[in-house]
Amino acid sequence: MTRIAIIGSGPSGMAQLRAFQSAKAKGLEIPEIICFEKQNDWGGQWNYTWRTGVDDNGESVHSSMYRYLWSNGPKEALEFADYTFEEHFKKPIASYPPREVLWDYINGRVEKANIKHLVRFNTAVQHVTYDENKKKFNIAAEDYKNQRHYVEEFDYVIVASGHFSTPNLPVFKGFERFHGRILHAHDFRDAREFADKSVLLVGSSYSAEDIGSQCYKYGAKQIYNCYRSQPMGFKWPKNWSEKKQLVRVDEHRAYFGDGTSAKVDAIILCTGYLHHFPFIEDKLRLRTPNCLYPLDLYQGVVWEKNPRFFYLGMQDQWYTFNMFDAQAWYVRDIILGEISLPSIMEMQHHTEKKYLEEKALNTDEQKARFQGEYVKYLISETDYPNFDVDGVHNIFMQWQKHKKENIMEFRDKTYRSVMTGKIAKPHHTPWLEALDDSLENYLDSEGAKEKNFI
Amino acid sequence: MTRIAIIGSGPSGMAQLRAFQSAKAKGLEIPEIICFEKQNDWGGQWNYTWRTGVDDNGESVHSSMYRYLWSNGPKEALEFADYTFEEHFKKPIASYPPREVLWDYINGRVEKANIKHLVRFNTAVQHVTYDENKKKFNIAAEDYKNQRHYVEEFDYVIVASGHFSTPNLPVFKGFERFHGRILHAHDFRDAREFADKSVLLVGSSYSAEDIGSQCYKYGAKQIYNCYRSQPMGFKWPKNWSEKKQLVRVDEHRAYFGDGTSAKVDAIILCTGYLHHFPFIEDKLRLRTPNCLYPLDLYQGVVWEKNPRFFYLGMQDQWYTFNMFDAQAWYVRDIILGEISLPSIMEMQHHTEKKYLEEKALNTDEQKARFQGEYVKYLISETDYPNFDVDGVHNIFMQWQKHKKENIMEFRDKTYRSVMTGKIAKPHHTPWLEALDDSLENYLDSEGAKEKNFI
Repeated sequence: MTRIAIIGSGPSGMAQLRAFQSAKAKGLEIPEIICFEKQNDWGGQWNYTWRTGVDDNGESVHSSMYRYLWSNGPKEALEFADYTFEEHFKKPIASYPPREVLWDYINGRVEKANIKHLVRFNTAVQHVTYDENKKKFNIAAEDYKNQRHYVEEFDYVIVASGHFSTPNLPVFKGFERFHGRILHAHDFRDAREFADKSVLLVGSSYSAEDIGSQCYKYGAKQIYNCYRSQPMGFKWPKNWSEKKQLVRVDEHRAYFGDGTSAKVDAIILCTGYLHHFPFIEDKLRLRTPNCLYPLDLYQGVVWEKNPRFFYLGMQDQWYTFNMFDAQAWYVRDIILGEISLPSIMEMQHHTEKKYLEEKALNTDEQKARFQGEYVKYLISETDYPNFDVDGVHNIFMQWQKHKKENIMEFRDKTYRSVMTGKIAKPHHTPWLEALDDSLENYLDSEGAKEKNFI
Repeated sequence: MTRIAIIGSGPSGMAQLRAFQSAKAKGLEIPEIICFEKQNDWGGQWNYTWRTGVDDNGESVHSSMYRYLWSNGPKEALEFADYTFEEHFKKPIASYPPREVLWDYINGRVEKANIKHLVRFNTAVQHVTYDENKKKFNIAAEDYKNQRHYVEEFDYVIVASGHFSTPNLPVFKGFERFHGRILHAHDFRDAREFADKSVLLVGSSYSAEDIGSQCYKYGAKQIYNCYRSQPMGFKWPKNWSEKKQLVRVDEHRAYFGDGTSAKVDAIILCTGYLHHFPFIEDKLRLRTPNCLYPLDLYQGVVWEKNPRFFYLGMQDQWYTFNMFDAQAWYVRDIILGEISLPSIMEMQHHTEKKYLEEKALNTDEQKARFQGEYVKYLISETDYPNFDVDGVHNIFMQWQKHKKENIMEFRDKTYRSVMTGKIAKPHHTPWLEALDDSLENYLDSEGAKEKNFI
């Protein structure tokens, strides 16, 4: 029997499992599917752990998730077309749910699909190779639960292990002398640790913006962030200032490119992540910076040099959950023979064209549109439920505007679902005052617990 | 040509490199040797990094070393028999040197031996297997510097990757709610982070003792440690108290087995390390708790089921650097055919006997003696310079006594080298007041810099 391996059961891996189950439910015959997951549950980044460094199996901690994280984009932009928030929660909820609420939503769809038995938890893929003679992939895996190492053969492999787990870690002069904690955003867990402290965030992208906002919300004394090219330029609170690039630190102070310096208690490197696949042999390994259209991947998913090998979700992301769906349905239909691929030359030519198209984009509006068109194309090729991608694009533009208006209040805004046509319900508590991010409190229509939260 | 792989270039791997170089210097022909090292320099644990979690190659950080670590045992107990502290430093130094001074010492010997070119740095071993047909080991390695993955064949493999890198991470009730930082000793870097804080150390072995002492020295407000079986029982400072086992935590407090509780700002898990070799296939993999005589290893080093596969330094350790030497010389002579091994049955029988002998030991004195006898035996089998192991045993006993007398002042004591017969020179500053642990300041006979250190 044809065998498919999925590596990782985060949002992309879950989408792939659901895509096959959806075909099966429609009466199609599907191959044997095995999903490898090194964590003890599915959900990928959304599976929060207090651990940093390595997990209880000695594997690098996958998730970069922290306490009190709320979605930094509207839920209406990431909603599944085949499973709406309303179907899951049975009532309207607000537009920027916290981590546990989003986890509950993505978990709900795959629980409904009854596919969890396809996942081998606590099992780390260590080595993926392709045997040219047998035309099979070999996967070496470590099963920590049963203390067993094994190798199995597969006909197709889908890599869905994400690219927000391995920190990009620049070094700055003086780090070996600095007296406070230095950590990467990947290891950030709880903003309360930095209450009453001066925190320096190195970087000016989503991590710096959101971790800084968390620190502000939970009582940091002073926040600095520094940038190489452009400041984020939001209207920051009084105790947040943006600085030119970090030049060096000493025991207590950080020195910036504009000649100023500041006393800081902790340094958080919000310097991004690496596409990191040491477990994949060279000839199958994606090597790319974070961009909207990586080279070597036809339609963003097919490994051109061996089109039975796939990657999901390796793009820089405007679209997330529903884009992973679009990709997973597309990959499924290639494997099931519903979609046929052009020649390698044609695939490469197409990818290069798209790669250059991306290079020519300047504005956020153009970039979001570019990825939206990509999502539209994928959906047009499969039976994934069609949805109003242009409507989602407009939500992204509103979101941008709301952030510019007030970076500490944009999460209080609500948006209309393109799936249900209904507008979200405002949350019972403004984000800045909502310290309890539990599912229970979030869904409580009165927010009664909030008042008692220490 | 016969090829030998050494995995890791910490103190054990360095000892193995030096052992072969020593034979070569005496005119013997030695096989080709390749040492794989995932870090960017040698020294293993002694190669300090400010990083935690993963390194700049995305590999788990190897070293558990922290700032301001001073040897927790007398240097006279770990001195190399073929390269004394006096030979290296050209003058007497004190008995408990800080990290940088010890690194300088172990580096000095192997620099002198001119063997660094045998080490492939930034290269992580990913998979070790044995090919029964070819009678060769296959090592799959990731060369991060050259972005290259490769597989090579070897006739012998020596695993020297240590067993103080993968944290043993127990979970306690409430960890997901606690508001402060929770970290394992492996991720502890700088005691100054905990100045003016209340710190809970979970555990009662060397990590808890030493990290607690560091926190005390650098100004922690209050220190707690908790134990499962026995308190450490030293005469602690007034702001340090030992508690029964941790039962649970909530947002701010830790609750102990004796019904008491305490407000704590941070929790450091000093809960030990795992023997963790996921890169070694099952039939070659050592699985053992931390003990003086692991099963499956004849003379503590030979993998009985395949005696061309070896492990160095996998014991619980009274003896360290000079025991690694004794092991490395012994392994070298097996490979060179100078020592012949008994049958598998005999080897297993011998190991089981020793394993049971260890089980019957009760006191520290007995345990240190047991390992001393083991070291004596190894040395008697090779040309490693003989030394007064009983003399070292007596140093261990003095060390124990000095710790009992005053846990915050035992590092001010001095001991006589069994190698040179000379007594150490007291350090210019008592340990508790010596905040600057740099090599430069340590070796400065006046300690002039110390006074200016902030």
